[in-house]
Amino acid sequence: MKGIHGGDIYRNRIELDFSVNINPLGIPEAVKEALHKAVENCDRYPDIDGEELKKAVSRMLEVPAEYLLFGNGASELFMACVHGIRPGRTVIPVPSFYGYEYAAGAAGGEIVYYGMREENVFRLGEEFFSVLTQDTGLLFVANPGNPFGTLMSREYLRKLLSHCRERGIYVVLDECFIEFCEGNRSFTDEMEEYDNLILVRAFTKIFAIPGVRLGYLVCSNRKLLGRIAGQLPEWNLSVFAQAAGCACAAQKEFLIKTAGYVAKERQFLAEGLKGAGIHVISGEANFLLVYSGEDLYGKLLKKGILIRDCGNYRGLSKGFYRIAVKSRKENETLLKAIEECAREG
Amino acid sequence: MKGIHGGDIYRNRIELDFSVNINPLGIPEAVKEALHKAVENCDRYPDIDGEELKKAVSRMLEVPAEYLLFGNGASELFMACVHGIRPGRTVIPVPSFYGYEYAAGAAGGEIVYYGMREENVFRLGEEFFSVLTQDTGLLFVANPGNPFGTLMSREYLRKLLSHCRERGIYVVLDECFIEFCEGNRSFTDEMEEYDNLILVRAFTKIFAIPGVRLGYLVCSNRKLLGRIAGQLPEWNLSVFAQAAGCACAAQKEFLIKTAGYVAKERQFLAEGLKGAGIHVISGEANFLLVYSGEDLYGKLLKKGILIRDCGNYRGLSKGFYRIAVKSRKENETLLKAIEECAREG
Repeated sequence: MKGIHGGDIYRNRIELDFSVNINPLGIPEAVKEALHKAVENCDRYPDIDGEELKKAVSRMLEVPAEYLLFGNGASELFMACVHGIRPGRTVIPVPSFYGYEYAAGAAGGEIVYYGMREENVFRLGEEFFSVLTQDTGLLFVANPGNPFGTLMSREYLRKLLSHCRERGIYVVLDECFIEFCEGNRSFTDEMEEYDNLILVRAFTKIFAIPGVRLGYLVCSNRKLLGRIAGQLPEWNLSVFAQAAGCACAAQKEFLIKTAGYVAKERQFLAEGLKGAGIHVISGEANFLLVYSGEDLYGKLLKKGILIRDCGNYRGLSKGFYRIAVKSRKENETLLKAIEECAREG
Repeated sequence: MKGIHGGDIYRNRIELDFSVNINPLGIPEAVKEALHKAVENCDRYPDIDGEELKKAVSRMLEVPAEYLLFGNGASELFMACVHGIRPGRTVIPVPSFYGYEYAAGAAGGEIVYYGMREENVFRLGEEFFSVLTQDTGLLFVANPGNPFGTLMSREYLRKLLSHCRERGIYVVLDECFIEFCEGNRSFTDEMEEYDNLILVRAFTKIFAIPGVRLGYLVCSNRKLLGRIAGQLPEWNLSVFAQAAGCACAAQKEFLIKTAGYVAKERQFLAEGLKGAGIHVISGEANFLLVYSGEDLYGKLLKKGILIRDCGNYRGLSKGFYRIAVKSRKENETLLKAIEECAREG
C-alpha cells in the first residue's frame, strides 16, 4: 500500500506531517477522557447495536437514528456499499480518494474513471451526466472533492442525484471533509428526497482521531441500508470507537470553531504559497492542491516535512501536491521551509 | 442481531455474565497500560502495514511474519475469507459459531450444514468426508468446537486437511479457543503442509479484550493471503488494536497460567453441575455445553445471571445451554444459584 496513501510516518523520519488532513485544533479533551475511560470496558463486547452512539449522532446530525450505519472508518463503509450493491459498473470521477477504487475493485465489476479538469477547478458539470448511463450501478463522488477541495453547489448535487435516481444509480456521497467548510454545506437535510443516496462521513479527520477508526453513513432507504449492513462484520466498532463517537457528537462548538480557524489559515497558507511562486487551486477544505515544477515533496522531506505527492493520483500528473492546512505556527514553518528550498535552488 | 449472539448485557440487568467466554483472569495489566498509552497516538493514522504487531505475533506463534494477516476481530477475517475465495458451496458443521453462516451468507453461494451428533460428543468422523465434495469451495471448522468444546485430534485434522486439499477446498480452521486448552493443541506448526489452510485466531477471548477488536489469520499460501487481504478495508486496525496486540504477544506466562486455571475450574464447575443433576458435555475449552429440562436461562436471568441459551443454535435444540468457565468465586455463585433454582422448583 506504500505510496498509494498519505505519507508514511512509520517508515520515514518526519517532524511535521502536512500529508494527512487532520483538524489542526487536535483531539477535543473530552474525547481523550472518554477514550481513557473506555479502557476499563475492554473486557466487554461492544454494544452490537451501538444504541448510545446512534442516538448521539442522530442528535448531532438531526437525522433519524434509523438512517445511520457505523463503520470501522469510512473505508469499511465504502467496501460494504460495494459488496451490498454489487454494481456491474461503477463510475469514479478522478482525481479522488484511492479508497473508492480499492473498494470497487474488491467486488469486481467494471470501473469507469471520469477525468475532472483543472480548468474547471475540478468541478463536475452537466457534461458528466452522459457517463451516468442506465447500466451504471454506483457512483462515488466527494463533496468537497479530495485532493482539490472544491465544493459542488447544492443545485448541481440535486440535479446529479435526480439524474442518478431516474437511472437506478446509487450514489455514495463522501462528505468526510464537509465539516471543515464554512456555511453548512452538508446534504444531510435532504436525505428523504433521494432513496439512492448514501452519504458517508467520518470522525477521523474532523475530530483528529484517525487512530480510532470510526465512520458512518446516512441513508433513508431501509432496504438498501439492510443490504449494506449485512456486509459489515459483527461488532465492527470497538468500545473505543463507540465511546469516542459519543463524546465527539456533543462537540458542536468545536465544529464551528474549526471551520472558522481553517478558513483563516487556508487563506494565510494559500497566500504564502502563491507568494513563493507556487500555483494554488482554490479549494474550500482543510487542504490545498498545488502545482510546482520543483520536486517539492523530496526537498521538504529532507527537512523532515511530509506533504502528499499527488503525482501518482489517477487523473493528476507529476508536479501536483496536496498540503494540509495546519496551525499558524506549523503553516509558517512550512512556508519558511519552502522559501529555504527556493534559495537552495 | 439480538438473540443470535451471546447475552445482551446492554439491554438486560446483569450481575454475572456466563454467556461470553472471556478469560477469567482478566486483562493483563501490561495490556491495559498499552491501551492508555495508545490514547496519545489517536491523532495519527495507525500503521497501515502493522509492522510492529506482525513482528510481535510472528515471535509469539513462531511462524513467519508474512503468513499473518490481521483483522478487526476474527469476524472481519471470516467475511474477508468468504469474499476473497467466493466459494460456490460452503460447508459448515453444526452446531457452531453463527459468524460462519453470517459471513458465508454475505457473499452468496450455497451453504451446506452438516449436523454433528451428541452421541459422538459433537466430534467429526470420517463419514464427514462424503460431504466434502469437489464442488465445495470452503469449509469452516473450529478446534475446539464452539459451543461444545470438544477437540479434534491432530491425526484427524491432517486427514481432513489432506482430503480437502486434494479437492481444492479451502479450510478456515477457527482456533479462537485453542489457547484455553491444555497441551499445545494448535496446528500453527503445520502451516507449510497445507496451502489450503487458513487458521484464524483472536485476542478477544484469551486476553479478555473483546472491546478492542483484534483477530488474525495464519496462512502459508501467499496468493490466497493476497486475495483475502484485498477484501479488508485499509487501516482496519485501530491504534488500540495494534498497541494491545503487541502487549498481548509478550504474555507467554499468562497463557500457561490461563490454561492451567481453566482446566481446574472447568472440572470444578462440571462436577458441580453434574451434582445438580445437569447433563454436561465433556469439552476441553473454557466453556461447557450442558443440557437441562428446566428453563435454566430464564431462571438464572431472574437472579441477574446470564448464560447462553443455545436453543436457537442450528444443530441444537431447546434445553441446551453454554456456560463459561469463570473464576472460582463466580463459579461458586453460579452453582449456588442453580441449587436455589432447583429448590424454588
